[in-house]
Amino acid sequence: MVRVGILGATGYAALELIKILLRHPHAKITALTSRQEGNRNVHEVHPSLYGRLDLRCEDLAPAQVCERADFVFCALPHVASMEAVPALLDGGCRVVDLSADYRLNDPAVYETWYGHVHSDAARLGRTVYGLPELWAAKIPPERLIANPGCYTSTAILGLAALLHGGWVEPQGIIIDAKSGVSGAGRTPKLNTIFSECNEGVSAYSVGTRHRHLPEIEQVLSAVCGQPVDAIFTPHLIPMDRGIMATMYARLTRPAAEGELLEATRRFYEGKPFIRVVEHLPATKDSAHTNYCDMTVRVVKGQAIVIACLDNLIKGAAGVAVQNFNLMCGFPETMALL
Amino acid sequence: MVRVGILGATGYAALELIKILLRHPHAKITALTSRQEGNRNVHEVHPSLYGRLDLRCEDLAPAQVCERADFVFCALPHVASMEAVPALLDGGCRVVDLSADYRLNDPAVYETWYGHVHSDAARLGRTVYGLPELWAAKIPPERLIANPGCYTSTAILGLAALLHGGWVEPQGIIIDAKSGVSGAGRTPKLNTIFSECNEGVSAYSVGTRHRHLPEIEQVLSAVCGQPVDAIFTPHLIPMDRGIMATMYARLTRPAAEGELLEATRRFYEGKPFIRVVEHLPATKDSAHTNYCDMTVRVVKGQAIVIACLDNLIKGAAGVAVQNFNLMCGFPETMALL
Amino acid sequence: MVRVGILGATGYAALELIKILLRHPHAKITALTSRQEGNRNVHEVHPSLYGRLDLRCEDLAPAQVCERADFVFCALPHVASMEAVPALLDGGCRVVDLSADYRLNDPAVYETWYGHVHSDAARLGRTVYGLPELWAAKIPPERLIANPGCYTSTAILGLAALLHGGWVEPQGIIIDAKSGVSGAGRTPKLNTIFSECNEGVSAYSVGTRHRHLPEIEQVLSAVCGQPVDAIFTPHLIPMDRGIMATMYARLTRPAAEGELLEATRRFYEGKPFIRVVEHLPATKDSAHTNYCDMTVRVVKGQAIVIACLDNLIKGAAGVAVQNFNLMCGFPETMALL
Amino acid sequence: MVRVGILGATGYAALELIKILLRHPHAKITALTSRQEGNRNVHEVHPSLYGRLDLRCEDLAPAQVCERADFVFCALPHVASMEAVPALLDGGCRVVDLSADYRLNDPAVYETWYGHVHSDAARLGRTVYGLPELWAAKIPPERLIANPGCYTSTAILGLAALLHGGWVEPQGIIIDAKSGVSGAGRTPKLNTIFSECNEGVSAYSVGTRHRHLPEIEQVLSAVCGQPVDAIFTPHLIPMDRGIMATMYARLTRPAAEGELLEATRRFYEGKPFIRVVEHLPATKDSAHTNYCDMTVRVVKGQAIVIACLDNLIKGAAGVAVQNFNLMCGFPETMALL
Repeated sequence: MVRVGILGATGYAALELIKILLRHPHAKITALTSRQEGNRNVHEVHPSLYGRLDLRCEDLAPAQVCERADFVFCALPHVASMEAVPALLDGGCRVVDLSADYRLNDPAVYETWYGHVHSDAARLGRTVYGLPELWAAKIPPERLIANPGCYTSTAILGLAALLHGGWVEPQGIIIDAKSGVSGAGRTPKLNTIFSECNEGVSAYSVGTRHRHLPEIEQVLSAVCGQPVDAIFTPHLIPMDRGIMATMYARLTRPAAEGELLEATRRFYEGKPFIRVVEHLPATKDSAHTNYCDMTVRVVKGQAIVIACLDNLIKGAAGVAVQNFNLMCGFPETMALL
Repeated sequence: MVRVGILGATGYAALELIKILLRHPHAKITALTSRQEGNRNVHEVHPSLYGRLDLRCEDLAPAQVCERADFVFCALPHVASMEAVPALLDGGCRVVDLSADYRLNDPAVYETWYGHVHSDAARLGRTVYGLPELWAAKIPPERLIANPGCYTSTAILGLAALLHGGWVEPQGIIIDAKSGVSGAGRTPKLNTIFSECNEGVSAYSVGTRHRHLPEIEQVLSAVCGQPVDAIFTPHLIPMDRGIMATMYARLTRPAAEGELLEATRRFYEGKPFIRVVEHLPATKDSAHTNYCDMTVRVVKGQAIVIACLDNLIKGAAGVAVQNFNLMCGFPETMALL
Repeated sequence: MVRVGILGATGYAALELIKILLRHPHAKITALTSRQEGNRNVHEVHPSLYGRLDLRCEDLAPAQVCERADFVFCALPHVASMEAVPALLDGGCRVVDLSADYRLNDPAVYETWYGHVHSDAARLGRTVYGLPELWAAKIPPERLIANPGCYTSTAILGLAALLHGGWVEPQGIIIDAKSGVSGAGRTPKLNTIFSECNEGVSAYSVGTRHRHLPEIEQVLSAVCGQPVDAIFTPHLIPMDRGIMATMYARLTRPAAEGELLEATRRFYEGKPFIRVVEHLPATKDSAHTNYCDMTVRVVKGQAIVIACLDNLIKGAAGVAVQNFNLMCGFPETMALL
Repeated sequence: MVRVGILGATGYAALELIKILLRHPHAKITALTSRQEGNRNVHEVHPSLYGRLDLRCEDLAPAQVCERADFVFCALPHVASMEAVPALLDGGCRVVDLSADYRLNDPAVYETWYGHVHSDAARLGRTVYGLPELWAAKIPPERLIANPGCYTSTAILGLAALLHGGWVEPQGIIIDAKSGVSGAGRTPKLNTIFSECNEGVSAYSVGTRHRHLPEIEQVLSAVCGQPVDAIFTPHLIPMDRGIMATMYARLTRPAAEGELLEATRRFYEGKPFIRVVEHLPATKDSAHTNYCDMTVRVVKGQAIVIACLDNLIKGAAGVAVQNFNLMCGFPETMALL
């Protein structure tokens, strides 16, 4: 039984993580931390856990967590995460970090996008990016994995096969993404209160302003071996869960839909959570699951890829448990079907 | 043309008020106040007003408002309102107060429910409660009107005819109410963020804890000439607009549905915003209007009254303009159809 | 491994049933029937099952199902169900019937409420009502279980403890219920299209018109040993999943909230899916689970019970699997946590 | 007073039309037709009209409508519309046709996209397309106006200024559009029932399959004097009202955001319903109004235009009344602010 700690247990991704781990036969949650909710039982913070987990949220230092846990999911905000992770590793824990702090390879890029000097810069560039559909082989031996962002996973998984196969141009890709509101987190803000975002759609961070863009470009460039350059437009949709990315990429040569579907299927052969479908996938069909659904259409010389996943599961907590499974030698799908 | 000021212009009721007044042929908005949003143009606070009203929100004292306005809608929170209203009246303005500060007759009751000593207690007990369907005749000469609460209007309008006619017992009435989230205001709080209240129903302030209850009991007691005693259970529903109250009151004597419908129709004869319908009304049919829809059913010795209205219009801004119209001698329905 | 058939596989409850059974270590789905969707793969009917279940929906007679299955969940509409169940039992299958056909004890009551003469009337009155929290001991040996309705389970579970303990009067109970739209089924009708029910609340079947009422009264009368008489008002709420029942029952003697909570806790001691909570439960906290959450308040001589559950899980497919587990000797919670 | 008839009064656009016309000082609704709802009062079909309009829906022939009306809004489905319009014109009525039947110039294109031979082909090519922001001068003398589609208006209004000014390439434009569900009409279908489309986003008619695409390309080609070629991807969003189009067009030469905003403002100078804003517009800000909001961003050599409007008002009934106002010599904004 792996003893598991969760840092930052009050957010939505942490809640999903707890629910998944409660179904995991080889994991036992032994420590939950929270700065604001210190000393409240976790079911007071997340009433859906009433009767399912009887554990206090505590304001614990990383070293204290290491006394109780072998494995830590770090669900802290960025910056807070890079302050905790080195101590967790020093304390002997293995770590999946759900923040953005270890995703980018270049400390300068991190500083540009996040506005902070990285305090653990030496680990950037050698931390594995935890997208098991791309790098399952690299994950098992690692002690620290950078868990991908939700928009990021949707975009990367949708485009990787076609870019890797050279079917589409790596330049001028358009990623028009639509996300449910839970992706904006649990901290009350004017733009996420119900009366502001219900019955409405809005774009935000248009242009080159959303922090998931450098992550998308970095990973897809690695996948295709050339610099990938994209325009990313996120939209907020009045629903709880799910992301859809509608992506437009110019074909490098004439190709039929069937060829692209087939190439995508082959690329993801044996990957249990990728479903390449013929119909147009809806976010509802992958909501509350760890699946990523996708399809391809060819229109006027462009490949249109539509990819969907649940932003809190496949986009956060679910893939984190996939990484946990791989790191601990459990079947990749354990607790995730 | 009546020059109109609005105190507390940043909330949802104020926004609806502005939209209604922009269609009013005899009103001109000349002053908007806000403490936090001081010096921003109102369309920066409410983007839907872009191109429709070019006026700054200012942090004005009541006396300054009186220099620019003849009539003031006070949309401040309770307590803040009773601090401003006396100065507005002294400054020569007529006032519709949308807060709870002048609704209750008894300062002691106010203190019990709102936790503050009333600083303008002398006006309690002689301020007219602005429900035009009940007291249209009293409103025109007044200089201050207490605008009713949203749950309150729904419950009172639904029950008044049957209580006044002696059809139902004034004791043991059950008011099970369902409100859209805009009723909770525009200040970000955990329980009103989208991801908390979408896809869920919850009750709150169950028992004798919601501040609209003493208001309901006070007004209905006046309507029926006996103390009215009710249980009030508000629920939050994942929608923007609308309140439905499902109310259960014991019949004093056997009566047919048709009789109760007929009695209700007669009671509201000539009231342009009350629609007594045979079908079961849905909140959607009165949303974005100043109508209050209601019907009655008789089941096992109880009258079941179902009443609906838009919480921000008929439950706040619309009835405020009804009061404004009556006070200024304009047709009651002006700008409201 | 129990071979399982599902009759009427195209509805929402059937979909949830399939998802639960796919996680069940001792169940294998071997037959799916549908009259309209005959010969389509189930994932064409329910795209969320893509890659999870590769089985055709077929237009099979009960006898054909019995060749492939040991256990059948009958998710047909009423009337269709009583035409299939006798043949299933004759064919050697054990059956959980999710329709209303075997829930009522009296064929005359069935005929009154459903407008059909019952063609298998001899089984009424001796079919066990499958609410394991009340009759777990009776369920294991049965070959046919009548699975409860969704409103019914919510109301019964919420009131049973207080009625059984004599804390509240069995007469004049008011059940004000709020349901998500999935309870209305998957057949397109004007009143369930998105644009009609989004952004609105409506009551329906008010009075003594909803078919779940005789079921509630029958079961609660059995629980408390006296005739129970209730007013039931269902409402449609703009959300997918969940039912909340707010119930008002007169106390037989003065009692404190703590006593009623304690009595409820004792009544449900050892029942893994009942959570008696102190806070006001929200439907969202039990959505997508097999839990039923409830609490009690005492107000002006009345007990107010608020109970919530997921209408498709604890209100249909989840309790059906609870019954399956009990009938087959598996742990009651298997595949349900 | 203009006597107005509405053909096909039971749909959502017709309902909005009725509501707008009830506020119009120079219009009086005198005839409503419906094939299925014949002889029911309109408030039985649309309960929100209770007490506001007392008129029966009748199954009237065009000639009968002409006896009662001077002006007809034809809200019939395509094909049905072209069967009625000639008779309406022959009967002396002026007509705004809300269907697609008179929007395309070329009968062959109509046949390709709608699968019917056009029975009134002679009028194609000389019927004015009723987008007053583009062709206000042509509309007044006409007897028949083709009212634009909702996606169409959003896309055309958003792109017209930049295409007309030569700022963007007319080839390879991407239109990623998001619509509320009311755009799918009031006829119950599986994909528009609440439980299917709530809590989900889906794309449909991807590629070159949506019938609004040839309309967009035809009108924008006329605007810019060159063939315009676009990819159009519509998505269904879980909300009632509103369309957002996020559009990507390559700049013909380097340009700053300010220049494009300024060019757009000049293009729409004096157009009362176009709001060119600096912030990112949300559909909620134009919902229930006749405004079309838009902004522009420049990213990596592309202009990103975001345009929003209410699909039933500015996308259907509101623009129809704009056309009515222009045709009858009333102020363009009458009843629309």
